[in-house]
Order: sequence, then C-alpha cells, then structure tokens
Amino acid sequence: MGGRVRVVVAGATGYSGRELIRIVLSHRAWELVGAFSSRVEEGRAAAGARERSLSEVHPELSGLTRMVCQPFDEAVLAALDPGLIFLATPNEFSHEVVPSLLASGATVVDLSGAYRLRESALYPSYYGFEHVHPEPLSQAVYGMTELVRDQLPGAKLIANPGCYPTSIILAVAPLLEAGLVELSQPIICDSKSGVTGAGKAATSTTHFVEVNESFRAYNLFRHRHTPEIAQGLGIALESGQLIFTPHLLPINRGILSTIYLKLRPGIGRADLVARWEATYRDSPLVRLFPETQLPEIKFVAGQPYCDLGATVDARSGQAILVTAIDNLLKGAASQAVQNANLALGLPEEEGLR
Amino acid sequence: MGGRVRVVVAGATGYSGRELIRIVLSHRAWELVGAFSSRVEEGRAAAGARERSLSEVHPELSGLTRMVCQPFDEAVLAALDPGLIFLATPNEFSHEVVPSLLASGATVVDLSGAYRLRESALYPSYYGFEHVHPEPLSQAVYGMTELVRDQLPGAKLIANPGCYPTSIILAVAPLLEAGLVELSQPIICDSKSGVTGAGKAATSTTHFVEVNESFRAYNLFRHRHTPEIAQGLGIALESGQLIFTPHLLPINRGILSTIYLKLRPGIGRADLVARWEATYRDSPLVRLFPETQLPEIKFVAGQPYCDLGATVDARSGQAILVTAIDNLLKGAASQAVQNANLALGLPEEEGLR
Amino acid sequence: MGGRVRVVVAGATGYSGRELIRIVLSHRAWELVGAFSSRVEEGRAAAGARERSLSEVHPELSGLTRMVCQPFDEAVLAALDPGLIFLATPNEFSHEVVPSLLASGATVVDLSGAYRLRESALYPSYYGFEHVHPEPLSQAVYGMTELVRDQLPGAKLIANPGCYPTSIILAVAPLLEAGLVELSQPIICDSKSGVTGAGKAATSTTHFVEVNESFRAYNLFRHRHTPEIAQGLGIALESGQLIFTPHLLPINRGILSTIYLKLRPGIGRADLVARWEATYRDSPLVRLFPETQLPEIKFVAGQPYCDLGATVDARSGQAILVTAIDNLLKGAASQAVQNANLALGLPEEEGLR
Amino acid sequence: MGGRVRVVVAGATGYSGRELIRIVLSHRAWELVGAFSSRVEEGRAAAGARERSLSEVHPELSGLTRMVCQPFDEAVLAALDPGLIFLATPNEFSHEVVPSLLASGATVVDLSGAYRLRESALYPSYYGFEHVHPEPLSQAVYGMTELVRDQLPGAKLIANPGCYPTSIILAVAPLLEAGLVELSQPIICDSKSGVTGAGKAATSTTHFVEVNESFRAYNLFRHRHTPEIAQGLGIALESGQLIFTPHLLPINRGILSTIYLKLRPGIGRADLVARWEATYRDSPLVRLFPETQLPEIKFVAGQPYCDLGATVDARSGQAILVTAIDNLLKGAASQAVQNANLALGLPEEEGLR
Repeated sequence: MGGRVRVVVAGATGYSGRELIRIVLSHRAWELVGAFSSRVEEGRAAAGARERSLSEVHPELSGLTRMVCQPFDEAVLAALDPGLIFLATPNEFSHEVVPSLLASGATVVDLSGAYRLRESALYPSYYGFEHVHPEPLSQAVYGMTELVRDQLPGAKLIANPGCYPTSIILAVAPLLEAGLVELSQPIICDSKSGVTGAGKAATSTTHFVEVNESFRAYNLFRHRHTPEIAQGLGIALESGQLIFTPHLLPINRGILSTIYLKLRPGIGRADLVARWEATYRDSPLVRLFPETQLPEIKFVAGQPYCDLGATVDARSGQAILVTAIDNLLKGAASQAVQNANLALGLPEEEGLR
Repeated sequence: MGGRVRVVVAGATGYSGRELIRIVLSHRAWELVGAFSSRVEEGRAAAGARERSLSEVHPELSGLTRMVCQPFDEAVLAALDPGLIFLATPNEFSHEVVPSLLASGATVVDLSGAYRLRESALYPSYYGFEHVHPEPLSQAVYGMTELVRDQLPGAKLIANPGCYPTSIILAVAPLLEAGLVELSQPIICDSKSGVTGAGKAATSTTHFVEVNESFRAYNLFRHRHTPEIAQGLGIALESGQLIFTPHLLPINRGILSTIYLKLRPGIGRADLVARWEATYRDSPLVRLFPETQLPEIKFVAGQPYCDLGATVDARSGQAILVTAIDNLLKGAASQAVQNANLALGLPEEEGLR
Repeated sequence: MGGRVRVVVAGATGYSGRELIRIVLSHRAWELVGAFSSRVEEGRAAAGARERSLSEVHPELSGLTRMVCQPFDEAVLAALDPGLIFLATPNEFSHEVVPSLLASGATVVDLSGAYRLRESALYPSYYGFEHVHPEPLSQAVYGMTELVRDQLPGAKLIANPGCYPTSIILAVAPLLEAGLVELSQPIICDSKSGVTGAGKAATSTTHFVEVNESFRAYNLFRHRHTPEIAQGLGIALESGQLIFTPHLLPINRGILSTIYLKLRPGIGRADLVARWEATYRDSPLVRLFPETQLPEIKFVAGQPYCDLGATVDARSGQAILVTAIDNLLKGAASQAVQNANLALGLPEEEGLR
Repeated sequence: MGGRVRVVVAGATGYSGRELIRIVLSHRAWELVGAFSSRVEEGRAAAGARERSLSEVHPELSGLTRMVCQPFDEAVLAALDPGLIFLATPNEFSHEVVPSLLASGATVVDLSGAYRLRESALYPSYYGFEHVHPEPLSQAVYGMTELVRDQLPGAKLIANPGCYPTSIILAVAPLLEAGLVELSQPIICDSKSGVTGAGKAATSTTHFVEVNESFRAYNLFRHRHTPEIAQGLGIALESGQLIFTPHLLPINRGILSTIYLKLRPGIGRADLVARWEATYRDSPLVRLFPETQLPEIKFVAGQPYCDLGATVDARSGQAILVTAIDNLLKGAASQAVQNANLALGLPEEEGLR
C-alpha cells in the first residue's frame, strides 16, 4: 500500500461525503486514511462514544470499510499525513479551514462554495459571510474539469464547481467563447434538481410529504449559484443577460437544465454541435446526444457524465439546450475526483467507471 | 330528480372521464344518466359481457354509483335524452361525433383539441387529421372560463382548453392585453406536467420505471399545444415570440409553468399584480399568491384552482410568472364543469368545492 | 348560521388538522369558529405576529377561509363557546387538556392516543407518560365507528382510533366475534403506511431522500398501536396471539394491511364474507371487494372508506385479508367526523362525500 | 484481450440484461462479444435497420460501448464462439434454446425460471408450458450462490434463482436446516418488490399512475415463485407450511421481505444469528445486520448484497426476519455473475464491487 496517496474526506456524513468515500474506497491509486464530520456527534449521544463507524452512519457502506467517522479535528487530521483532502463541508467551515490545510502541503479539493467566486465582495450577499482569505481565493482553480484541464496538474486548491453551474457552464461556455450566441436576448436557465441537492438536514423543505407529488421554483433571481454561473460564462452579473431559476424535483438525485438562448444570424444546430465536439473531443465524461434523443435524468443518475443535447428552431434561431448530470457525482463528488486525479497526474476517469 | 339536467360522460374510462364522473355524481343540479367509452371493450373479454360497471373500471368509485360503462353508441346515447354531454374522448373521435351530438340539441363540452383551433389548416400538422367540420369549429366557444365568461351562457359547443394552455394563458393574456409586455424578447413557457397528462395508455413513456426518478423535456418547438397557446395570447404562431417547452414530472397530477417575459419600461410587479386583480376580481377559482409564496403543485392537486404568482427583477424588467393547476381539474374536468355551469345558467363553482 | 354547531380544531398545523379543517369548512351543519396550534409560533418569528392565517400555514386552503391559527389558549378557546372540539394534538397534550375541555360541556373528539387504552397501566411503557385522568379515560368511547355506533349518540369524549388499528380491527373483529378464527396460530398483521402517518415534524426518518425509493419495517413487536389492536380484538396483549409489524411506504397517504389468520375447520371465504356483509350492511363507508379485486391504496387515497378484501386457501384454511384506508381520513379526520356526526345526531357521512 | 472469456448476453433490451451488460463491460476477465434480443425489432422500424446500438436501447450505456444489439439468432450467436452465455430471456424462450446452447460447450446461466424447478410437472400450472427438456433440467445447478458454492465450479447450466426466492431462502434455509424452526406454524413471507421486477413491458400494471402513490398485493397463494421457495426450503408445496405474498412497491428497484416464523422452544435470537454467521462467514455478499438496525431497501439498491436482520420476541418465540436485496442484482444479474465467476474458477465478487 506504500505507494498509494493517503486521502481524507471531511464532511463524511453528508451525501457528497458518502459518494466520495465510495469512490475513494474503489480507487486503485488512493487509500482512505480518515473520515471526519462535525455532525458525527449528532448520532453519538446514545452510544456515548467519541466516534461512529462509517457503516453505522451510512449502512450502504457495510462490508466495504470498517473505518470510523471522527469529529473534525485539525491536529488529528494532520497526524494522518494526507496527500489529498476532500472537503464536503459547509461553506463557512471550508472558508475557515482551507488556509491551514493548505499549509500542511496536501492537495485540497473543496466542494463548498467558499473558494469559487473570484470577486470576494460577493460573499456577504450571496453566502452570508465576509471572505477573509484573499490569497487562497486568488490561487484556487475553479475546477470545471473539461474547461480548465491545463490548470489542474499540480494545483493545490481546487474549488469544485456547484451542481447547477456544472449543468449550465459546460453547455453554454463553449458557445459563448466561439461567438455563436446573440446576447441581446438573455440566456435563460431553467434548472430542476433532485432533493439530495438540498443536503441531509431535515427541514420542512426536505420533508417527504412537502416534496413528494409536488414541484416548485425557489430563490428566483437570487440563488447563490447565479454569480458562479455568470463568472463561468464571463457575463457581468448586473448585465441582465443571465436568468437562472432553480426548481425542486421529487426525486433523489439528478439535475436537468433547460437553457434558452438565441443563436447569431446564420448559426444553426450543426455549428453548435461542432463547437461542442471540438471542445469535448477528448473528454470521456461529457456525452453529446443526437438530435433524436435528448438527455434525461435517468441516463446519468449514479454516473459521472454530463450529457448535452440541443434543439434549434432554424427559422427563429432560438436554441434550447438540455443538459443532465447527477448532482452528487458530476455536480459534486465525481468531478472532485476528476480534478484530484488531474492534479495528481492520473487519468481523469480513474476510479469513476 | 325531475328538474335535474341529464348528463352523459363519453370517454369514461380515462382519467379526465373519471374526474368528470366524480364531479357530476356530487353535483346538485345534475344527474348522471350515461357513461360511455370506446375502450370499455378492452376489459370485457374475460367476463364476456357487453359492458362493465364503472366501479369495476374505476374501483375508486365503488359505493358511489352502480352505473355501467357502455361501448359508445350514438343511438343509445341519444335515447338517454341528455341535456349535457361531456366528451373526454380522443381528438379524432370528438371531431367526428360533435356535429351529430349538437344536432340532438344537447350542450356539448369537448375536452379534446378537436374544436379548439380556429384556424382549421393547423389540424393536419399538429393533430394529424384534416378538419372537415368548419361550421361547429367556427361556433365553438374556446372555454378559458375566466376570460370568456360573457360568451358562455347558452353556448352549445364549448371547446375546453388544453391543460398546458390553461396554465399559461390565464397568467399571460391579461398582461398582453394591457400592453405590459415587451415583445422584442420571446415569451418563454417552461412547463412541467404530471403523468396523467399523458393519458391512460400503457406505453414505454408511461412505464413507471421510465418516468420515476427521472425528468425529461419533450416535443421541443412542436407540441400541439403551441398553436393553442399562441391563439389564446393573440400571438402569430410564426412570429417567434412564443416558445413552449413541456416536461414530464414523476408525479401523478399537476402542472407548474415557469414563464419568462420582459415587462415594458416602467412596468413593475405592482402593475402586473394590479392587472391580475382587476381581471380575476370575481373569479373564485383563480388565486393570486403573495410575493413571499409562489404557487406549488401540491397546493392545487385535487383542487379546481389556477394559482398565479410573479417575481420581477426591477433592474432588468425581467418577470418570472409561476403558475400551477391540476391538469385533470382546472386543466380538464373542473374547467369543463365551470363552462357547463355557466352555459346552463348556474354559478361556475357549483359542484366544485 | 345560527343553528350550526360551533366547531374548534386544535392541532391545526398538522396533516390531520388540515384535513379536519377542510371537512368542517364544507360541512353543512357545522361552523368553524377557531383553529389553534401550539406549533403556530414556529412560523411567526419573521412576521412578529401572534398568529398566522390558515392559508399561510396551509396554502392549499387559500380561498376557502380567512381564519387565523392561534397559539393554543384554553381561555381563548372557551370564549368561542364551541359545541364540538377536535383535538389533533400530541398524546401528552390531549391527555392534559381533555378534562377541562370536557368541563366546558363541549363534545370532544381526541385524535391522539391519550384516551384509547382502557388499561391506564399501559401508558408509561407505550406512550412514555403516566395517565392521571382515570375518569375521562373510563368514560371515553373508543370510536371505531362501525363497531360502536350504538354508543356514540350523546357521547362527550370520543377517543378516535389509530390509523393502523382501524385498518386491522374493522377486518378482524367481526370474524373473531363470530368464532371463525383458529387462535392456535397467531394473527399476523403486516401493515404498510404512507409518510403522513409519521406527522409533519422534520426528522431524519421523514427526510425525502431517506424515504424515497426505499422501504423499511420499524418498531417490531413494540409499536404503540399493538395494545390498541389487541384491545380492539379482545386479545390479551401477552398471549402471543397477535403480531403487528408496521412499515413505511414512500407515498404520502394510505395504509394497506395484509393480515394472516387461520380459519377454523370448515370455514371458508363465503362464511368470512357473509360475516362482513352482516356487520357492514348499513355502513356506507366500509366497502367489501370481490374475490377478483383486492383493495389497493389508490382506491382509498383522499376518500373516507375502509376497503376490505379476502383470499382463502381452501385446502389449508389459511386466510389473507387485505385492507386499505387513507390514514389521514378513515384513519384520522374522516372517522373523527363520522364519530362527531353520530354523537350530535347527524348521519355519519355528513360532510364526507 | 486474448485470455478473456468471450461473453454473450441474450435478452439485452430488458432491465436484467442491461445490468448484466454493465457488469460484463467492467469485468476484468471477461469480454462482451455479443448482445441479442428478440425484442430489438420493436425499435427498428423507424430506422429500417436490422439492429440497434446498445446505447440507443439503453442511453445509460452511452460512452461505455459501441456494440449493437442483434435479433436473436443461434447461428450468429454460435459464430461468436462464446465461453459464457447469460440468458435474461422469457421463460419459454430459455426453455427452448438452452439444450442447443449447451451443446455448443458454453457455460449457460439462465436468469429465467425455465430450469429452476426440479419437478417438471409443476411447469404447466405455474409457468403455462409443458417442460420437454428433462435432461438439462436434471443437470441444472440451482444457483443460490452462497448455499451451493461447492456445486458451481465447472457447472455448465446454472438456473439463476428468482428475486423473491433469493430474499427468502438465504434467510430461512440455514435456520430450517439447523432445526431451529417450529413447523407447526406456517412460515409467512410477506414480500414487497419494486417495479423493475415486473419487467419492461408496458401494461396497465406498470403504468406510472397505476403504481405511483399506491401499493397492492397480488397473486395471493399462487405466485410462480411459491414452488421455487418451497423447493429451496425443502418444504412440501402442499404442506401448508409456507405462505408467500408478493406486493408491488412504487419504487424502481429492491425487494424487502418480512418473514414470520416460530422458533423451537429454547431457541433465541443469538442462536439464529450464530447460525447465519456460521453459514455466511466466507460470503462477502451477505451482510448480517445488528439488532439495532434492520435492513432497508435503500441500503442495497444498486448493490450486490443480500442483507439479513432479525428480531425475536423472547416470550413467544416468534421471530421476524427482515431481508433486502436489489431485485436486478442479487435477485438477478449480480447473482448470475457470482455464479458464472465460480463456475469459471474466479472469485465470486469479481466485477461486482
């Protein structure tokens, strides 16, 4: 086992943490050496113990590991001497611990939003806290893997993208960059997500009966992923050129985004697809769908892909892009692993198929 | 029972037919005298009988009625001497039988699309058949109840609106009529429907496993409700000013439409809401939601309402309307009953609350 | 409105409370004069108000009522001078307030378990509190409507049955009473319930993702409905003749119980059904299903019925009873209304169909 | 690739076929050389082609394979020279083709029921066809992997167990064999399955709206898995000692069985668990759950395990076993792979974790 990278997962009790653990356990070049959570204590009282086994926290993992999940403690973590740390932790928590974790020399992949926005002034209004670590913020690579593959080798801090932004930026950014889009009309992103996107906290909005057999829009014009999408597309947040509306689907996992944009005169579906093909030629985890079959959530659930499809009305030049990802995988854990693989010199798919 | 209107439901084996029967059975001024279906034979073979009881077809109705469901037969129907006929039948079927049913003097409410589009030339491409009954087509009242209340008393043929169009036209038509909308940007209607909207036929697209835990868009730029919405909004179908995208939700019933449009300069949320209030002041089945609470499908499931909500971005003038209906009720059976009530001189809510 | 009974609902923020309010609002002989909840405060902070409108708590009720939901206060409640009080409140809460509410002269229907078990010694182990009100406990009518119809007229305290017990006792009690069951083999009740049965509290066990696409058994051999079922069947709790296992279904509402029992020698399906027919001849809300169609949850969801079906293996004498109810209606609110109707001299179905 | 076993999957368009293909594609010692289906033609008409790509049939597999799915043809199959053939085909189809496939020398794992019942006389009443191949029937190994591990090496025909039987036999057989069970009381198996168990055919019983938000029992006393379970437990079918009741859950995948049996005097939970531990000590895909945590479907969905749990009422000696499997994996595809691995001399988990 000597040659394997020592890996720690913090935030191990959540859904993304669970997916990370599952992937790390099956990864040939990595070794899971520690799992932490600040929420591990919630389940401890009964047992009076300092820690719970991962298979107690996630019975799905029974038989795969005997590791325990410990209360987060930087000294304990450092003593494990990890080469790679995944943070599937709350925004404020990541914001706080990243600087010292970086100081240890480990590669850090942060799945929270704490190091995603280059403009730190956006944090108070969109995340509710003042960002006080400008240096790591400026160094962080925003890890939309397929679009920043060159920046990843050797990266020490990777800000793993949000789930909704992944489902939008991978589709739209190449088209904007190639100048195919008419920006006089706003780009409208109507996104729908499963409930794991809301996390494991039991609230009235995640109660089964409040979600099941229903559907709703939320956070219109003010979801915190809006500035992240704008940044990823190179659109000024104040320009009015981007509208993003998230909705909650009564399913466990998956995001489907229906994206409306106008193509520039003379541009058709073939041009659009050609641009995607050029961008993703060597990207095994982006799949382009034919005109006859649009992406659906069931095709990506439990899988590390981002699926892209498009329909264009030739007469009006209006295009509808339909994209799908698993919010816990390409929208969180598997993209984090793609990024870590590339940061550490491995093929990006290692451990993912 | 002498004074009650004699009512027949054709298409009684489907979901809308079932809802109609339930409402008619509880309606104080109506008497259900017949139920028909061309599909009743599907379940008959085993029993070798000519007919099945409604409670065998729909066990939900056990204890409410002992009526049988008969194979559709115009002579049998006519002999029942109905004053009111609901057609919850396929488009081609309604197209064919409406003229002779009208000749009998009964009021006919057709829930299919056969008499909705004033421009008969649209039928071949959107419905797959040539429309050969121009006279009833020109007489039919398109029954978006709240917007045509004056035309309903005494109407003999009512073309009951489609489910998606109801969820869109009630929200948008008053705003367009009042000149509040900037039409340089298309009105984008991103609609999501439960599976009853696809009918009771067992196909690969209604198979539980194909729908459950998934979500998909379908019929982009070419759904047959597109010309109906354009007609209801007074927008030319070829203008490119309307985009309608339906999606399939893994739930039984309900539609939520997220509608994107740009308000004219100087117009804000208050103007929009004032217009809705003026339009729906005397409409007990349209509910306006406050800014703090958007409509959700669960609030209307099983209920005859159309719920309307709006959020406006003051800076850009972009508005997002969120509307919800039960596709089987306000999108089909309860709106049919509203229309029939008004056609026959009753309060529109009779039998609905 | 003078002649209508003044009705109060306490526990108005929960699911059963909501169903009660909906029924009371449509009941011709009743008038809703007050709605209370000790949980109303949870949503108040933002508004800084002492109360919330019912349509804010339950947007489904928008347009039906403008009543507010107040923090529970006995003096305020008494000042409303109610003739009928529904308690859809927690067990301990009902236990405490019933005596003084009874003293006011009102008829009280308690939907909690606080007055269901005649043997008060069972409360500490099954409900976690000492029962200190023996007098009302001894007076309470256990309101399994169809089996105690004679005791209901004029009753002042009705202990409304639990949801699981209703789905079991209505099927089994008549068979036991008639001596059709061989008790050398235990009666095994394998019951499955939707999530509303777990109440509106947001916990890890009601989180959408923990319930959806899963299924589990819980509280084996020790669910608090076990002594209630034993009491209803006249079986000694310690006899080992009753096994009850609840399970959680990933649906909103409905209970299906699969009940295994052995018939005495010579007894067949016809005898069993004859006994049900005799018992429920005049019970419009119990429906007996033919051998060819077993009850299913969808046939009762949203309806006030208890559906009963049976299959018997003639060779072995083994019988399987399959029963279905809506846990919020026949298992709670609609049975409470049946009981109140009969207590107050009205037809039991009033307001329910 | 030279050393890898050449594998063919017949029945590739169904759910079990899809799972088999996914596993075979990731299996280090195997190479998928052909995929067949008699249903491939259903989707061909439009394209006018003789075959469809697997990724067209199952878009989930896009990016994993470019193989086509061909109409079943024994000559074409034989020309591929497979060493291992999985039949995920209908019962009658497997019944017919197994003899000639065996003659080719390949190892055949049949996932249908065609070669499971040793007593051929049961086929007409339970499967609707006369069994005319007694020789392969007598040679077939009934592949409940953990209980027949010794018989698998070198086996040429493996009858892969049914999904319900797997969830029951693995729990009960070791207890019966050890004489822990009191047989004066029937063993009652109340099983609940997701909808993939009903196959991919679109029928009224698999229609989303008929299944969703509902729950039902079916085939009481006469499901075709009953004789298979009796055979696996060594119980005479006519003895009345076994009752099996399947139910349909509104979920995609997974089976939970709640099994009621009486332990012999003096036998307790510890004895039961000790027996399981002894039986499954070296079985990595059977997981024993502690008393404090019963199996749930979500813990096994998408995984190759069978989870076992037990609760015993010490006073009465009544035991409730709760077991869970994924019906498409341990109930079909992954158990087939376990069996094939052992038949071909590989570790049973190869390709499964």
